[in-house]
Amino acid sequence: MSWMDHQKFQLRDPTSRRLAGMLRNDDGPVTTGGRMLDLLRTRGTLSRVELAELSGLTQATITHVVRRLIDGGLVREVGRAQQGRGQPRRLLELDADAWYAVGVQVDRTTTTVVVIDFAGRRVATAGFRGTGTSGPDAAIAALADHVDDLLHSAGVPRERVIGVGLVTHGPQDRQRGVLLIAHPTPDWLQYPLASTLSNRLGLPVLLENDATAAATGEQWSGMVPADTFGLIYLGSGLGGGVVADGNAYRGRASNAVEIGHVGLMGASAPCVCGNGGCAEAEAGPRTVVAQVLALPDLAERLGIKAHEEDTLADFERVARAWQAGDGDATALLQQSARWIGRAAVTMVNLFDLDTVVLAGPALVTAGPLYQQFVEAELTQHALGRALSLPRVLLSANVDTAAAIGGALHVLRSVPVDHMARTPA
Amino acid sequence: MSWMDHQKFQLRDPTSRRLAGMLRNDDGPVTTGGRMLDLLRTRGTLSRVELAELSGLTQATITHVVRRLIDGGLVREVGRAQQGRGQPRRLLELDADAWYAVGVQVDRTTTTVVVIDFAGRRVATAGFRGTGTSGPDAAIAALADHVDDLLHSAGVPRERVIGVGLVTHGPQDRQRGVLLIAHPTPDWLQYPLASTLSNRLGLPVLLENDATAAATGEQWSGMVPADTFGLIYLGSGLGGGVVADGNAYRGRASNAVEIGHVGLMGASAPCVCGNGGCAEAEAGPRTVVAQVLALPDLAERLGIKAHEEDTLADFERVARAWQAGDGDATALLQQSARWIGRAAVTMVNLFDLDTVVLAGPALVTAGPLYQQFVEAELTQHALGRALSLPRVLLSANVDTAAAIGGALHVLRSVPVDHMARTPA
Repeated sequence: MSWMDHQKFQLRDPTSRRLAGMLRNDDGPVTTGGRMLDLLRTRGTLSRVELAELSGLTQATITHVVRRLIDGGLVREVGRAQQGRGQPRRLLELDADAWYAVGVQVDRTTTTVVVIDFAGRRVATAGFRGTGTSGPDAAIAALADHVDDLLHSAGVPRERVIGVGLVTHGPQDRQRGVLLIAHPTPDWLQYPLASTLSNRLGLPVLLENDATAAATGEQWSGMVPADTFGLIYLGSGLGGGVVADGNAYRGRASNAVEIGHVGLMGASAPCVCGNGGCAEAEAGPRTVVAQVLALPDLAERLGIKAHEEDTLADFERVARAWQAGDGDATALLQQSARWIGRAAVTMVNLFDLDTVVLAGPALVTAGPLYQQFVEAELTQHALGRALSLPRVLLSANVDTAAAIGGALHVLRSVPVDHMARTPA
Repeated sequence: MSWMDHQKFQLRDPTSRRLAGMLRNDDGPVTTGGRMLDLLRTRGTLSRVELAELSGLTQATITHVVRRLIDGGLVREVGRAQQGRGQPRRLLELDADAWYAVGVQVDRTTTTVVVIDFAGRRVATAGFRGTGTSGPDAAIAALADHVDDLLHSAGVPRERVIGVGLVTHGPQDRQRGVLLIAHPTPDWLQYPLASTLSNRLGLPVLLENDATAAATGEQWSGMVPADTFGLIYLGSGLGGGVVADGNAYRGRASNAVEIGHVGLMGASAPCVCGNGGCAEAEAGPRTVVAQVLALPDLAERLGIKAHEEDTLADFERVARAWQAGDGDATALLQQSARWIGRAAVTMVNLFDLDTVVLAGPALVTAGPLYQQFVEAELTQHALGRALSLPRVLLSANVDTAAAIGGALHVLRSVPVDHMARTPA
């Protein structure tokens, strides 16, 4: 029995119950209506002629599909614009109030909740401490309260919420909505995360990988000028995502692009995965904080104490020290950024990329330093550097990219016909 | 102007001219008819009911599409089989003589030409020396002669040949049919390989990467029991390919999975790509031969001489010495296989794989050794080893897998409607 069968009779709200049966966590084929919504979400406003040009579909098909989207309350006309010669064309945009979606990104040290509207714009954001070492029962209860509170304070009516994207580290079983790893504590392994949160909230919940969510979020927000690109995600750990030809690369079971476990030449740090020299162990934020703690003077200067479970807050102290010109902090961050650049070379060589986006809460302050060093490594070492100069972009939403992506994933997971608010 | 525009008026044969305009080197969407052909090619014989079950399409759609395929001379009925209760069902299979395709794999040290029938079965094979250091003019002329001779001796009528898949190392510009690297000699860079061979043969030619061709060839031949898997290709160099959800992973410009340029922990050999410690430089067949030459006793024992340009023949000598129990040869091959296993760990972690196929002409004899060591490295070090035990398969066509894949790529690149031999 899939998690959907499991939960759809337990949801309180009829809308949620109906939608739960429709949400698909499988990146199924996108319908023509779905493509129109994606284009409008990415571009803002477009005319029917532009939709036809961008999609390669005929004008007649576009006219028909747009009519259904307008009748369904998902798209509306917003005036005219002169485009080239001839009659001014009517412009279309998404009806931002048609639906909302919630994105929740959670790890050991940070929780981010966002609410986005149907146009993909963020309407509310909240940040909290992460799960720490608490068990999943308590953590899910807290997440549900955070979502309830944010929806309430944003004034978003619950029956307009299409669902919740729950975004965590991997490996995951997305279909069943469980983690396949005993992290942060043993009782998280195989705990029914998605269905428990769904039952608590009375809303459908889809589980998604944080780095993949950030990558698809950047894409659907129209932030990245490429259909194929990689994303490196620095939370307290280190993850990766790849969008190829506009679709998230999933692999066998959606646990792909584990860039944190790329072995690095010359590296040797022991890793939780059982190997040595992995990028995360050698250069991830947790390692940088440990390196600071190994230098008592620096640790004291930055106010970082051993045995505190807040990697991101400590890492942020290092980043601010870099910003203030501290030489030791700068050296540690540069070394980390160079290693991650080396891992990026491997990702770029294997996935044939020329664009890499950096995102994740560790980059709120340190972003520009990582951008510079990762780009330098790619420019010097990527195999395709002579064919297409690699570029590294810093997400405009470093700390919320994953939560936004989780929410967008949910918005895009409901077939268009089932989102229509009035029968077409 | 695309290479297709370029060449379609220069082809002598009217069939070739018509088909040239239809061949697509872009992995476009597969039509329903194309899916039926793929299923029949992979499975051999199937009933309409089985086609419906495997494709998820309705019985009515299957009946309609199969009718068109039979009318077009592409599929035929071949008797009945009892399947469960009820009436025995009519079985379908591809009409093997409907079309043929040619695959040509060429590198510096080896050339392989295959002819396959419409069912994907090999009807003729020939192997020759590679291009050596000759320029592309002479090499293409020789390839064209090889193809002409093989078609002639196999008795395959030219008007039944749908096209030629030309398979080489990367990086390539597949659309333009040119190499983007000055290898084996500078004049190969940007030389119009596909169009020159096309004009010489009077047949459409599609350029494809060797490792990707081998991967898709294994898949469409029905050799691999997984929809998502990786392939490691050992020719004189080292390349990789990934099939994800049944499709070749292409990346930005079809130059993906360059596993030869994964940096290895603890490695340092200088690489042609300008870096150090790459898998190909550290462990590829060319390196193994160089390591033998650095041991004069071993080189003499194996009959390997410096300054001869035949990596694969020399590597084969090392492999046979391993087979005969030579300790030094065994040590060098095991070291190479372990390094390649390390590169495989990175590929598997990034692409989320549990199945890896080994192919390439270097593995004719050494295959089982590489299979054992690569599987051991994956079993010990792959991130997902606890979730799904990695398995390593040796291709049944190690030396011809890439050429067969190139030919299958061409067979699958023509829209079904244009292959019909009699109007539907």
